[in-house]
Amino acid sequence: MMSNDQPVTYLNLDEIHHLAQVALESNGFSQAQANSIAISVTAAERDGCQSHGLFRVSFYINALRNSIADAKAEPALQVNDSTVIHVDGKNGFCPLALDIGLPALVSKAQMHGTAALAIHNVYNIAALWPEVELLAQQGLVAFAFTTSNAYVTPAGGIKPLFGTNPMAFGFPREAMPPLVFDQASSASARGEIQLHQRDGQPIPDGWAIDREGLPTNDPDAALAGAQLPFGGHKGASIALMVELLAGALIGENFSVDSSSQDTHRVGAPFGGELLLAIDPEKFGSTQYLQRAEFLFSQMLDMPGTRLPSQRRYEQREKSVTQGVAMPARLLTELAEMTNN
Amino acid sequence: MMSNDQPVTYLNLDEIHHLAQVALESNGFSQAQANSIAISVTAAERDGCQSHGLFRVSFYINALRNSIADAKAEPALQVNDSTVIHVDGKNGFCPLALDIGLPALVSKAQMHGTAALAIHNVYNIAALWPEVELLAQQGLVAFAFTTSNAYVTPAGGIKPLFGTNPMAFGFPREAMPPLVFDQASSASARGEIQLHQRDGQPIPDGWAIDREGLPTNDPDAALAGAQLPFGGHKGASIALMVELLAGALIGENFSVDSSSQDTHRVGAPFGGELLLAIDPEKFGSTQYLQRAEFLFSQMLDMPGTRLPSQRRYEQREKSVTQGVAMPARLLTELAEMTNN
Repeated sequence: MMSNDQPVTYLNLDEIHHLAQVALESNGFSQAQANSIAISVTAAERDGCQSHGLFRVSFYINALRNSIADAKAEPALQVNDSTVIHVDGKNGFCPLALDIGLPALVSKAQMHGTAALAIHNVYNIAALWPEVELLAQQGLVAFAFTTSNAYVTPAGGIKPLFGTNPMAFGFPREAMPPLVFDQASSASARGEIQLHQRDGQPIPDGWAIDREGLPTNDPDAALAGAQLPFGGHKGASIALMVELLAGALIGENFSVDSSSQDTHRVGAPFGGELLLAIDPEKFGSTQYLQRAEFLFSQMLDMPGTRLPSQRRYEQREKSVTQGVAMPARLLTELAEMTNN
Repeated sequence: MMSNDQPVTYLNLDEIHHLAQVALESNGFSQAQANSIAISVTAAERDGCQSHGLFRVSFYINALRNSIADAKAEPALQVNDSTVIHVDGKNGFCPLALDIGLPALVSKAQMHGTAALAIHNVYNIAALWPEVELLAQQGLVAFAFTTSNAYVTPAGGIKPLFGTNPMAFGFPREAMPPLVFDQASSASARGEIQLHQRDGQPIPDGWAIDREGLPTNDPDAALAGAQLPFGGHKGASIALMVELLAGALIGENFSVDSSSQDTHRVGAPFGGELLLAIDPEKFGSTQYLQRAEFLFSQMLDMPGTRLPSQRRYEQREKSVTQGVAMPARLLTELAEMTNN
């Protein structure tokens, strides 16, 4: 999202958090909802994921135009004897629902070995890596799945049905940030097509089809048509799996439901999220951390390879010491959005 | 695997089972090991997956040349208060270990909502869809993961490290066979490259690199080099996840360990398998089956689409009524393998 032709200001992480928090609260978000969103936004800026950073504060504020969204929602945790935990987000936003559900998921997984957390009735426009990273930092193996809006066509299809449907995975490391990936089931992020559109650039082959189902390199035609899954029918299977897990299984919206309900064209998908957590300590192997390091070292011995989360962690180290370069235009937009 | 230039014999499913069972028992397999393998082989023939059918009986027999394999192994089930079940396959083959572990996994998942089954110390050269289908037939959402031999290079890499690492997923359907997919993390199955080699045909772009790390269409160079993951770095992430789950987490071999231990070049990977099962009934949604059907119907309304398991189930219907066409050469080979 960074362009090189405008002045930048370096902000530290506290400043970024504060800007997001104030902008959200001044637009009617409760302190708790705003704080959880600000943590999510700040983590994204810290790790160099600008598209989920301060840039996204406007998405949260715009979502309030949709009458269902509740910026003061107080999510409710539901725990019973099973290993399945629920949080009803009550039409608020996902970050606070996660902050309430994740500690309970950690406890359940540590007690039983496996556990699931279903988040209900939330607007989810954040990345999934923060929650799997948090779970893996607690020593757990973690999965996260969520739907989005209907943007992606099934293999062989011509109309959008699936979301970009990210799936995230985390595995703990000793004295290191966890192994984490968070990847869309689509060939590209929707935002990447929008960036090509903004810059007047053609999109690569394999990203999208137009409204007639024909391959296109035109970002306008792609956005009006459908995105393609990554890796052909195998990526489409992953997208279908995400719909079934984060939609049917937990009783929440499919991506196509979010789109049909989004009558205000806000683009903030409304539905749920499924997390799975596994405690390796219950599997009896005492060497799983060392064994994982053996695999990583075999991989990194090959020049040209890197671990999925490596670039994000490198950026994090820089951000913590140097702050984050914020484009002046973004800060101006945020100031205009902030009601005094 | 079928070629059209040789006579075929139609066998019914009982006959296929019997051929496999007798061939295995005559080579020293216990009745129980042989029966579980014969069930697996017969299911593959029934569903048109010839590469996991009678063709594979020779792989099982060849694996005995490796001194670790035990054709009379009696797997041991280990269940405790947690949701994690273990089966020690005791150096036998995976199908019998699964037959012993799956009923316990179903019980645990139905009791707690989530559960895991770790299979240890087995040779696994079968497909994964039978076990996720069985779990989904019992009403559960199911995942299966297993490593193989080091055939696939990481994204950006030039040497084989990951296995073809299939991941299978099952979701129940009402009065219908479950939604199931079982897909390799590699761009192609290794057997597909071997078939191109046999037929003197070049392989498609994107399947493999040679020993120097350069793209190749030559099946010999591909088999001596490395296979590529499907969908670039995203497929490579899935392959890495499978290694961590079916290797590090459960304390079993990585694919690269199987290869280095396979001193007899048998090619039957030795290690484990991880299964996860989730009971949708514990999630509180009463509509998950109908909701899944809604999604499937939206998908199938588009001409050119199909559900992942559709062709397999269509073949199954034919096989049950008409029997399965077996090439004469395969039956001759099997007869030669069967000690009288």
